[in-house]
Amino acid sequence: MSTFDSKNSKITINTMRVLGVDMVHKANSGHPGIVLGAAPIMYALFRNHINLSPSNPTFPNRDRFVLSAGHGSALLYSTMFLAGYKGLKIEDLENFRQIDSITPGHPEKHMLPGIEISTGPLGQGVATSVGIAIGETFLNKSFKCEYGSLYDNYTYCLFGDGCLQEGVFDESISVAGKYKLNKLILLYDSNDIQLDGKVEDTTDVNVKKYFESKNFNYIFVKNGNDHVAISEAIQLAKKSKDKPSVIEIKTKIGFGSAKENSNTAHGSPLSEKEIADLRNKLNYHNEPFEISKTAMQDFEPLKIRGDKAIEKYNKIYEYFKKDKSFFKKLKNAQEGIFHIDEEDFNIIKDEKELATRNLCGDVLNIIANNNPFILIGNSDLSSSTKVKYQNGDQYTSKNRLGRNINFGVREFASNAISTGISSYNELRAISSTFLAFSDYNKAAIRLAAISEIPLISIYSHDSITVGEDGPTHQPIEQTWTLRLIPNNFVFRPCNKAEMIAAFKFALESKKYPTSIITSRSNFMQTKGTISKALKGAYLIKEHDKYKLTIIATGSEMEVALKVSEILEKEHMMYTNVVSMPCVKLFDEQTNSYKESILGNKKVVSIEFGVTTPWYKYADITIGIDRYGYSGKPSDVIKKLGLDPNDVAKNIMKKYKEL
Amino acid sequence: MSTFDSKNSKITINTMRVLGVDMVHKANSGHPGIVLGAAPIMYALFRNHINLSPSNPTFPNRDRFVLSAGHGSALLYSTMFLAGYKGLKIEDLENFRQIDSITPGHPEKHMLPGIEISTGPLGQGVATSVGIAIGETFLNKSFKCEYGSLYDNYTYCLFGDGCLQEGVFDESISVAGKYKLNKLILLYDSNDIQLDGKVEDTTDVNVKKYFESKNFNYIFVKNGNDHVAISEAIQLAKKSKDKPSVIEIKTKIGFGSAKENSNTAHGSPLSEKEIADLRNKLNYHNEPFEISKTAMQDFEPLKIRGDKAIEKYNKIYEYFKKDKSFFKKLKNAQEGIFHIDEEDFNIIKDEKELATRNLCGDVLNIIANNNPFILIGNSDLSSSTKVKYQNGDQYTSKNRLGRNINFGVREFASNAISTGISSYNELRAISSTFLAFSDYNKAAIRLAAISEIPLISIYSHDSITVGEDGPTHQPIEQTWTLRLIPNNFVFRPCNKAEMIAAFKFALESKKYPTSIITSRSNFMQTKGTISKALKGAYLIKEHDKYKLTIIATGSEMEVALKVSEILEKEHMMYTNVVSMPCVKLFDEQTNSYKESILGNKKVVSIEFGVTTPWYKYADITIGIDRYGYSGKPSDVIKKLGLDPNDVAKNIMKKYKEL
Repeated sequence: MSTFDSKNSKITINTMRVLGVDMVHKANSGHPGIVLGAAPIMYALFRNHINLSPSNPTFPNRDRFVLSAGHGSALLYSTMFLAGYKGLKIEDLENFRQIDSITPGHPEKHMLPGIEISTGPLGQGVATSVGIAIGETFLNKSFKCEYGSLYDNYTYCLFGDGCLQEGVFDESISVAGKYKLNKLILLYDSNDIQLDGKVEDTTDVNVKKYFESKNFNYIFVKNGNDHVAISEAIQLAKKSKDKPSVIEIKTKIGFGSAKENSNTAHGSPLSEKEIADLRNKLNYHNEPFEISKTAMQDFEPLKIRGDKAIEKYNKIYEYFKKDKSFFKKLKNAQEGIFHIDEEDFNIIKDEKELATRNLCGDVLNIIANNNPFILIGNSDLSSSTKVKYQNGDQYTSKNRLGRNINFGVREFASNAISTGISSYNELRAISSTFLAFSDYNKAAIRLAAISEIPLISIYSHDSITVGEDGPTHQPIEQTWTLRLIPNNFVFRPCNKAEMIAAFKFALESKKYPTSIITSRSNFMQTKGTISKALKGAYLIKEHDKYKLTIIATGSEMEVALKVSEILEKEHMMYTNVVSMPCVKLFDEQTNSYKESILGNKKVVSIEFGVTTPWYKYADITIGIDRYGYSGKPSDVIKKLGLDPNDVAKNIMKKYKEL
Repeated sequence: MSTFDSKNSKITINTMRVLGVDMVHKANSGHPGIVLGAAPIMYALFRNHINLSPSNPTFPNRDRFVLSAGHGSALLYSTMFLAGYKGLKIEDLENFRQIDSITPGHPEKHMLPGIEISTGPLGQGVATSVGIAIGETFLNKSFKCEYGSLYDNYTYCLFGDGCLQEGVFDESISVAGKYKLNKLILLYDSNDIQLDGKVEDTTDVNVKKYFESKNFNYIFVKNGNDHVAISEAIQLAKKSKDKPSVIEIKTKIGFGSAKENSNTAHGSPLSEKEIADLRNKLNYHNEPFEISKTAMQDFEPLKIRGDKAIEKYNKIYEYFKKDKSFFKKLKNAQEGIFHIDEEDFNIIKDEKELATRNLCGDVLNIIANNNPFILIGNSDLSSSTKVKYQNGDQYTSKNRLGRNINFGVREFASNAISTGISSYNELRAISSTFLAFSDYNKAAIRLAAISEIPLISIYSHDSITVGEDGPTHQPIEQTWTLRLIPNNFVFRPCNKAEMIAAFKFALESKKYPTSIITSRSNFMQTKGTISKALKGAYLIKEHDKYKLTIIATGSEMEVALKVSEILEKEHMMYTNVVSMPCVKLFDEQTNSYKESILGNKKVVSIEFGVTTPWYKYADITIGIDRYGYSGKPSDVIKKLGLDPNDVAKNIMKKYKEL
């Protein structure tokens, strides 16, 4: 008998299957198809390969497993239960997909230790796995000694035909191949069926050729029920020295049930009758949720591997303890502590005018100098966004300690991979592109927010002042789109203090993503205060006889201050001016703070973007609810009626109408 | 001499180059690199292959050209000018990238006849080209006779390394290969350089293998200055019978300039000195914007081809004139007239309760029955979204008249391809998926809006009432995200009249995209009026002693009506209830109409999504500013405090605080 086999493997695999099917049945909702089809894959991986400790599921050097086919959660939970994961009880499985359970319909990271990333939206689990694998290479080199590295985990990811069709899959596969992430092992649950029918109805990609074109090590397992063959394939993949691996495993969706090989097995519970027949066919006769000791004991090798891994880890950890300063670095990393001190930024000269993309670059570089575990990613626009660590090398397959990562023109993957990197408590990744292209990668911010991973995304070229590139490159609705993502904190700083505040929030955040939005063009600088900026909004200019409060963000602060002067001089209308770098933080303040900032007079907002959401704070909104124009920034501003004189006139007109 | 060559080809190509460079120089902004590198490609294509008439640039059976590398606009405009495009004058080139010019920084469809799609955001030009090619196959079969087909155009698309890295590129390439779009010819400007540096720094994809894995006919041209070789490659591609083609052409970015083969050639104008050196090197000594007759005459073959194509077209057109009813069908198609009559929908039984996804399916099917030129696309979720034409076949490579297209799990491509299809005045494509996944494809809606193409996207599963699938599948911010896209009209219907109104608007729209949002769950139906729904909002319930107006959309109409009853019974608080199926249409109404609907009392909005933008219309907002939960819909609603009793309590509490 192969060491990968056990006398009880059949029983165990069928237990995983029926348990998952019973969960779906009890919930009257869920996806039995993948449970029945892919159970042998999970068995092979968890029994024979993955290195982790079910009793200590957040052990830092655990192998990572990501279920990109997130709808297979019942299979994951049943596997985790049999493997003896701490904190997962049989009642939790009985409460599958019920409110307040820790076993939601799709895996959620913050609910159950052992879930690395929340998954469900297809393709993204693979992309975040690529990020995890990149993170491992960096940590591996960072904490290496004569006994080995403190971090040397593999990253496994199970995906299906749906994931494979997504664009973000292709983007991230390209990155994985380019960076030779040989410890990334993708398990392809290849069953020829998708939700609406057969895969061949929508796809005739030559999978082997496709992966090989992306520099993957491609391995094929023709019988998905042959768990030993799967184990052997994983064994082979683990030996890959310079390529990530994908193992295509031919499975049968809904295996053993009346719906085997049919898309009807995908997303609806089996009936009582179908389940009874399944039990007979699999010769499995336990009552629902009655689990035999045999099946649970079959995962003993996993526990032994976990103990060994912890032992090895502890040995290296003890070694590092000897060097106090190095150990402090390690401790800080593991606790996710980043150094950011207001004093650090005194060396940035105050300028009368500047573009916040440059300011962002300056602040970022100081932070990167002081924090070795921040990786700086870009989507081939670092020359324009200024999101680049000047003292840092490029990350390459030969230089795993490079701090700058070029993801190529792959915005979605950039955010999703950065989320994967940041899923290590030890690391924080920054992703960057133009604000107009946040449309391409917003979905990854949402998943980071749901996963409670503090992804940092930086977007430059934030308005129509981009100018000549025209409407396709001029964000209009994007800033508010990002603000509306729950738990994503968007900063649009107008000065140095606000920029520092944005990074401070981002780095101190343990679970909320942050988006920092910067300008391409220069504008007048003001003096802010970091602590005030962290309240989301504060007064930049005050007048005791104010009749109007003007809110502005980012580059529109210059417009607001000019408008304020014009209103004062030409209309005797005194104004307070408020900078609101982070709307969401302002929302969190007390009512009395909010009132102290917005005052009790009429309020105007000025932001060169959509106006609708600003009515929450303002009576009059100045902005743009249409696409921009290609032209010199000043011409575009003039044409849209947004130069300070026009804005002042417009405000007076609307004020009188109120 | 090859028929593809001319004695003046060198002069012409250099004229295209220097003209483009001069445009960028005069604008002091733009992208000279691609102009210099890819001019021979454009020359070969426009002089020797493309079938269109510069004097009649919207001739229906023109070959389509899409510049996916939209930053190469200077090259496109210089080509179009030399080719003698109607309406493009030398002054237009001098005004490149200036306000009010017809030559903006990236090509914009509505500005200049001959631009098929607005481009700029990378990858999407290729995806829309795939759509155009699908459209051609459908029209080709629809209007065929003994003299040939009225529509038999090729679709050409020029793309670069950036496009190739985008996920939407991969998604659309997969679709093109699967559907064997042999008249799609992609021209790959392969110059090994991208914005931040070398392509090899981010990518080591085996391009040939990649395209072959996707069932493309791959052709390689090793010298991008050899315009005859390029022409021969195009000739070969045109002969492909069952595969789309890609021609990889090795070019030199910035060819002939001091910045040749450098990323510095990409996005900044050349200096005076560099341009003088370039002129010397190319032995081209005309003054800026002084164009020789020689160069213009070199495109004579294009004009001859264009005349011939029109002649052939006219012959077939005359033939079709003979059959009056068929000819009417043709005329309607060409004028983009779709049949939608309120009477058509009387056969849909009024139900007390239903899910709007089903209602949407019913309305859609009647429309599809009456309109042969509507194609119904889905991203492998048609069983769930109900966006499927039941009487229609599947579109396949063997059945070009199939009306249902399964794009696979490729949401972004689905929208972008549908935009390409809808760029034919004759056709309208519908794209569909779950609302939560609009995050994946919003970028294509934006480009459709900028291109003024009336893409229709349908999104089902529109709220937390999705239930057990949990937060990743429960849209929160998506409805408002879609509403904030300028010129995109979002409908969230609550009854049959509103659903019909949504489709009526969508089909009668000539340039605005429409998004229709539907529910998975059943809810109480109300009686609406189509004409009122088309005003964006109208009163569903009125009380002459109303003290509060409640706005609701979609499935929350049931909540609003129940809350209205509770407020009346328990608090003697009479209310008006407003349905607002389309916020943007409501914004367009007169102030007096708006006042007549919203009234002069306090206003409450109820929508199970983000609340911030609702403050434009409401004093009190009821919604969700956090992620949902996995659980039974009723449990999720209860937990979020959104059942009618809780909502009524909450409203009274907030009302007293006002």
